[in-house]
Amino acid sequence: MLSGDIPDAMNLVEFSEDWFKKNNIDLSLNTTVEKIDTSKKSIYAKKNNNLIEKPYDSLIICTGAKPSIPPIKNIDSKGVFSVRTIDDIKLISPWVKKGKNATIIGAGFIGLEMADALYKKGMKINIVEALPNILSAVFDEDMSKVILEKISDKVTVFTNHLATKIDSKNGKINSLLIKDNVSGKEQTIHADLIIIATGVKPEISLAKNAGCKIGKTGGIIVNNKSETSVKNIYAVGDCTEYVDFVTKQPASVGLGSIVVRQAIAAGTNAAGGNYEMPKGFLQTFTSKFFDLEVAGVGPTIHSLENISAVSGKYSGFSLPHYFPGGKPITIKLSVNEKTGNIINAQAVGDKAAKRINTFACAILAGMNVETFRKLETAYAPPIAPTLDAETLVCDIVSLKLARKR
Amino acid sequence: MLSGDIPDAMNLVEFSEDWFKKNNIDLSLNTTVEKIDTSKKSIYAKKNNNLIEKPYDSLIICTGAKPSIPPIKNIDSKGVFSVRTIDDIKLISPWVKKGKNATIIGAGFIGLEMADALYKKGMKINIVEALPNILSAVFDEDMSKVILEKISDKVTVFTNHLATKIDSKNGKINSLLIKDNVSGKEQTIHADLIIIATGVKPEISLAKNAGCKIGKTGGIIVNNKSETSVKNIYAVGDCTEYVDFVTKQPASVGLGSIVVRQAIAAGTNAAGGNYEMPKGFLQTFTSKFFDLEVAGVGPTIHSLENISAVSGKYSGFSLPHYFPGGKPITIKLSVNEKTGNIINAQAVGDKAAKRINTFACAILAGMNVETFRKLETAYAPPIAPTLDAETLVCDIVSLKLARKR
Repeated sequence: MLSGDIPDAMNLVEFSEDWFKKNNIDLSLNTTVEKIDTSKKSIYAKKNNNLIEKPYDSLIICTGAKPSIPPIKNIDSKGVFSVRTIDDIKLISPWVKKGKNATIIGAGFIGLEMADALYKKGMKINIVEALPNILSAVFDEDMSKVILEKISDKVTVFTNHLATKIDSKNGKINSLLIKDNVSGKEQTIHADLIIIATGVKPEISLAKNAGCKIGKTGGIIVNNKSETSVKNIYAVGDCTEYVDFVTKQPASVGLGSIVVRQAIAAGTNAAGGNYEMPKGFLQTFTSKFFDLEVAGVGPTIHSLENISAVSGKYSGFSLPHYFPGGKPITIKLSVNEKTGNIINAQAVGDKAAKRINTFACAILAGMNVETFRKLETAYAPPIAPTLDAETLVCDIVSLKLARKR
Repeated sequence: MLSGDIPDAMNLVEFSEDWFKKNNIDLSLNTTVEKIDTSKKSIYAKKNNNLIEKPYDSLIICTGAKPSIPPIKNIDSKGVFSVRTIDDIKLISPWVKKGKNATIIGAGFIGLEMADALYKKGMKINIVEALPNILSAVFDEDMSKVILEKISDKVTVFTNHLATKIDSKNGKINSLLIKDNVSGKEQTIHADLIIIATGVKPEISLAKNAGCKIGKTGGIIVNNKSETSVKNIYAVGDCTEYVDFVTKQPASVGLGSIVVRQAIAAGTNAAGGNYEMPKGFLQTFTSKFFDLEVAGVGPTIHSLENISAVSGKYSGFSLPHYFPGGKPITIKLSVNEKTGNIINAQAVGDKAAKRINTFACAILAGMNVETFRKLETAYAPPIAPTLDAETLVCDIVSLKLARKR
């Protein structure tokens, strides 16, 4: 929207108020739920200072998340924004000016997508990331570096740097003080606009007060039916915690693709049906910034606790060598050293997302790399080589596995 | 190459003579093997009228296929070509003229890809197909019709028509007589160039004489190690017959993707290794013509003998409705009515090939549609909707299955 890709913010609203009326759904906007009484099966809400009580048979909590704000001096200065809602974007718009400096704090997807949008508007971009690598929640270190290298001609990224203090001049922000985590060295970078994109915290107060168990990631614990620990109360979205499919460890939910699937489960089950999600989520993700498509599925290698992994990486082109127009693609694959089962896959470049979907299917099937490497992929010279990157990376991993045995 | 996509034919030769020398491989070009003596483990070949005997430990037969020529009167006329080798393309080139009429006999992939190449060169295109549908070896009837509709503004396709007679004028072909299979009505279409693309026949005489069993599709029977029925003799490619993964019925090998995998198996096993292909091939395929990407995997519904299938079709766009630039995609999915296991998938449109690879993985895993429909696909507004065509088509099939139970 900020980049101009989406002409009108209202296009982003999936369902209009009209839609709710037509479907006989009682929608109460501008209404704040203050309490859930689980014994009475009622909620208490405030609208225009009136207290409303509404009974429920099933209740679905979708309170989402709020931006996690890092401890930076003068963070309340004019010209500093976090990004969560359509209204946030509207507030930022007047500050977007060609040739001026924008600094993004946080090199996750939101940070990089914001950087891309502001770059398209002609701003000069700095990104400050406290961790040693960009996108480290979802990419392994070596793949983070592949991505960083590909975007480094368009943005300046300060990894391993903490943002510590914002300085203003004539009522407008002017610069940001950052500190190298390793050397302790400080430097000042000029900034006409600062975007805080350091992640989110689940909004759980309502659920917690109703007795719903909260998990170690800070989200409301839900099971594969999207049920919370409290009977008849379901929860969906960024406020929840489910488990990773591969590791079975708790993981916070922060991907739209998962939320939609949780919503189907919660809606179906709340209405008396029976819908079970897979035993954990695959965490399939994708993003696009600076014309680079990236995607992945499965836990990162550095997040694994009790699993030894063997990894391999393949870089090549999307078309046979003799056919013009091939585009770069890099895929990294990791498998369980003991079982050979696929743990994760990460891709950067041509059709990364659709390639990763195939690995997601393999993980869902509990497939071994030796089986997957023999997968017949579709071939035609203008579309793909006889042996595509997806199976070539398996050959590399398979060789490494064989050497370990 | 004909279209100009590939500047030089030699680019298409994967391995040069130099490569063979470097790798210490004795390559004999222009050498015709005339006999295999399996008791002596020797082959006899002719080169420049000299008879050569060469002993073998393992032998791999890759004799390929030859064009299947239909019984058309005057088919030897000047201006009529079949397409199999680089030399064929060189012969056709002088006949390619802007504004002139090209007629393709056969609406398989070769026919449609030739049609596309000649269309790009400015020729007017007629296609004559004896069967009721185009691409009917690989697409279900309804999907064939989807494709036909999408290309019908660029070519005229006469389905259910037999080509019967070619007429020449001043030593050059001038027209083709075709006959409607249903009404028997005949008509003459103008043609300055005719391409025969009515499929191929396996070249098996050498293998047959050596005692290799020939299957009902006319190819040399090979197993999952690419072994023929004769010890130490392997076969690879268009001359072979293997089995379909889903139906376990014999199927002829005609896809480069399969041939490469057979070659890995035969090469490894012939050299004393142990490489097993999956128990049947998936028949994953793709093609591109007239800017349309098509792909599929698994047997067609009309080829199934003892399996009842339930099918569904989904047409939508590649991006969320609010994001500009979405491209059309149609996917058809069929599952086994009894087990719910995926039998085939066919796609037309955006990233058809990579989407089909995911279904290929599901078929290889023996996956049920109820499992696959819960697959978490990668989502980001500029790349894919939260629920992508691959799982939405499953929802349709799943509903149909539920109604049958």
